[in-house]
Amino acid sequence: MLYEINEKAIRLESEGKKIIRLNLGDPDLATPNEIIEAAYASMKAGKTKYSSSYGESELRQKLAELHGVNTENVVITPGSKWGVFATMYLIMKGGGNVIIPTPYWTAYDLIAKSLGAKTKLLRTEMENGWKIDLNMLEGMIDKDTRMIILNNPNNPTSKVMDAETLDGIVKIANKKSVTILSDEVYGTISFVKTKSILEYDRDQTHILTTGFSKTFSMTGWRIGYIIANKQFVDNITKLNQITINNVPVFIQEAALKALELQKQLATNIKEEYEERAKMASKTLAKAGFFFTKPEAPFYVFPKRPGLNSEKFTLNLLDKGVAVAPGTAFGDYKEHFRISLTAPRNEIKTALEIISEGLK
Amino acid sequence: MLYEINEKAIRLESEGKKIIRLNLGDPDLATPNEIIEAAYASMKAGKTKYSSSYGESELRQKLAELHGVNTENVVITPGSKWGVFATMYLIMKGGGNVIIPTPYWTAYDLIAKSLGAKTKLLRTEMENGWKIDLNMLEGMIDKDTRMIILNNPNNPTSKVMDAETLDGIVKIANKKSVTILSDEVYGTISFVKTKSILEYDRDQTHILTTGFSKTFSMTGWRIGYIIANKQFVDNITKLNQITINNVPVFIQEAALKALELQKQLATNIKEEYEERAKMASKTLAKAGFFFTKPEAPFYVFPKRPGLNSEKFTLNLLDKGVAVAPGTAFGDYKEHFRISLTAPRNEIKTALEIISEGLK
Repeated sequence: MLYEINEKAIRLESEGKKIIRLNLGDPDLATPNEIIEAAYASMKAGKTKYSSSYGESELRQKLAELHGVNTENVVITPGSKWGVFATMYLIMKGGGNVIIPTPYWTAYDLIAKSLGAKTKLLRTEMENGWKIDLNMLEGMIDKDTRMIILNNPNNPTSKVMDAETLDGIVKIANKKSVTILSDEVYGTISFVKTKSILEYDRDQTHILTTGFSKTFSMTGWRIGYIIANKQFVDNITKLNQITINNVPVFIQEAALKALELQKQLATNIKEEYEERAKMASKTLAKAGFFFTKPEAPFYVFPKRPGLNSEKFTLNLLDKGVAVAPGTAFGDYKEHFRISLTAPRNEIKTALEIISEGLK
Repeated sequence: MLYEINEKAIRLESEGKKIIRLNLGDPDLATPNEIIEAAYASMKAGKTKYSSSYGESELRQKLAELHGVNTENVVITPGSKWGVFATMYLIMKGGGNVIIPTPYWTAYDLIAKSLGAKTKLLRTEMENGWKIDLNMLEGMIDKDTRMIILNNPNNPTSKVMDAETLDGIVKIANKKSVTILSDEVYGTISFVKTKSILEYDRDQTHILTTGFSKTFSMTGWRIGYIIANKQFVDNITKLNQITINNVPVFIQEAALKALELQKQLATNIKEEYEERAKMASKTLAKAGFFFTKPEAPFYVFPKRPGLNSEKFTLNLLDKGVAVAPGTAFGDYKEHFRISLTAPRNEIKTALEIISEGLK
């Protein structure tokens, strides 16, 4: 339903209708100009040819430094979503099962199904602070379980996993020899401290996927990366060779420029999103919604007992506000997801329409 | 072996060694400046966000016009290789077999194997003008055959399929209900008239993949497209949604600019490659190689009886010339592939080193 809503929103806009787009994690903030200029300079310098399916050495080196790994542990991908697909393709293709805590990012489930793998959904509840129950997790793992997907910070709840829970998950995964895919795409701009899977993983049995989209407002550039052991990085590269070949070099050089500016850019972006989260929380609480306080960009995942979120979402779209129904993230039909990726005045207007819609 | 040679060439270059790169179909000609400027203008205009997994409407419309189909029959892909992978993923995933005439582009075989499909190789010979034997083709099709891949014009032979053979193949495929994937990425800049699969396919049971790389010297931009029936286009789009999401909009707008300039650009590019092909043919014939006359860019696929092409290729790389061994295209160990994608003086030097290497 997430993608259907988006294609419908695009269609309504192309018909001239004004839609406040709070349905995707696509920052309204423009890509910083320095990044655009770096891409342009790179194109002009002839960086418009085929290149390595590993990614550019300089970018890989810089990312390796940032994450405290070696260059051979980094491979560049066209978006972090490609990182997730490629990882699941290599590990899940042809069967087995993957454990996915819910609410989840829709793509995990769709990818698993596309690959012919089974998904085992591990439910978490708002009322319990979206905490993963370690006993339930351990009980769910069987001989066909190949992977656990963590999304930390989480989309759609914007909840950061507490260190104790993460410790427990890693311990169970290691004991049972199950690979963790840790999608940390919201990690850099989290409002609170987050722990990366890399902090545990000195043997590199687990896999980190992330990207530039959220941190640098570069969603449409399609660039991300995977950190894993050398063998796995080599295998992803072989898959890149027969699929996407390489991320355009001028985009990789733009991403390198982004990393140089990271401290300054990420701070500004984080502050803006924290302000928006505060504003939205206040309004939503007043309107009688229940939710956990966002600890990272960009989402709030409010609940209203009795809500039919799909109907609610389609009605809202006709009123000019696009949000995502809770059912797009698992069995959460009383929830919906608001993405705080519009200017504050638009968010304000949208929140009013949302509150209206409930009367 | 194709990708290994390339990664080794990149490594040698990064060590400061001068390599004449005739191993890939990557034009030395720069991407025309108008295309770069179009991308830059698009980035500056904020076209840096997520977009439709179908591709941009304007680009799809323009391509539909060019090919005489409807917009709903076109989906944009990150390179024509992605078009091939995505098509094979949807049709071959989990089994069946695909018939691939040889010599072939390595990726077809690697993709099939990666997807768990069987490949049936249909051998053609230089001595017979690389013609597909229709009886052999028909005899090869069994109940598990899902696809025939045509690459017309062909990589590595640069041979264009004669109309009679193509007529025959389509007839057989239709009779046996087997899908043809027609990779026509060299078609627009062919030196002789080529027939597209679209000329036959009023019911759109077959699939065309192609791209902007070769025609517009845009290899590193990663943009191509698929033409197929609406249902298949919708399915590719669903796969795009869980993998690459979209080709950057600024790249799509650059491609739209390229199409506006197509007549002028394609003519210039074609003339340059035709000159190179003539030059190379003359030198190679004099040096005692056998080959068919190139009818399209960029390749010559010479044969020398008794040649061990892998050994020959690795030796050449140490002498500063990268070409591809015949074994990268099937069981053709007496052949190697020269890609005429370097300035004429470099090609001349390389041909001298190649001739030397045989003594």
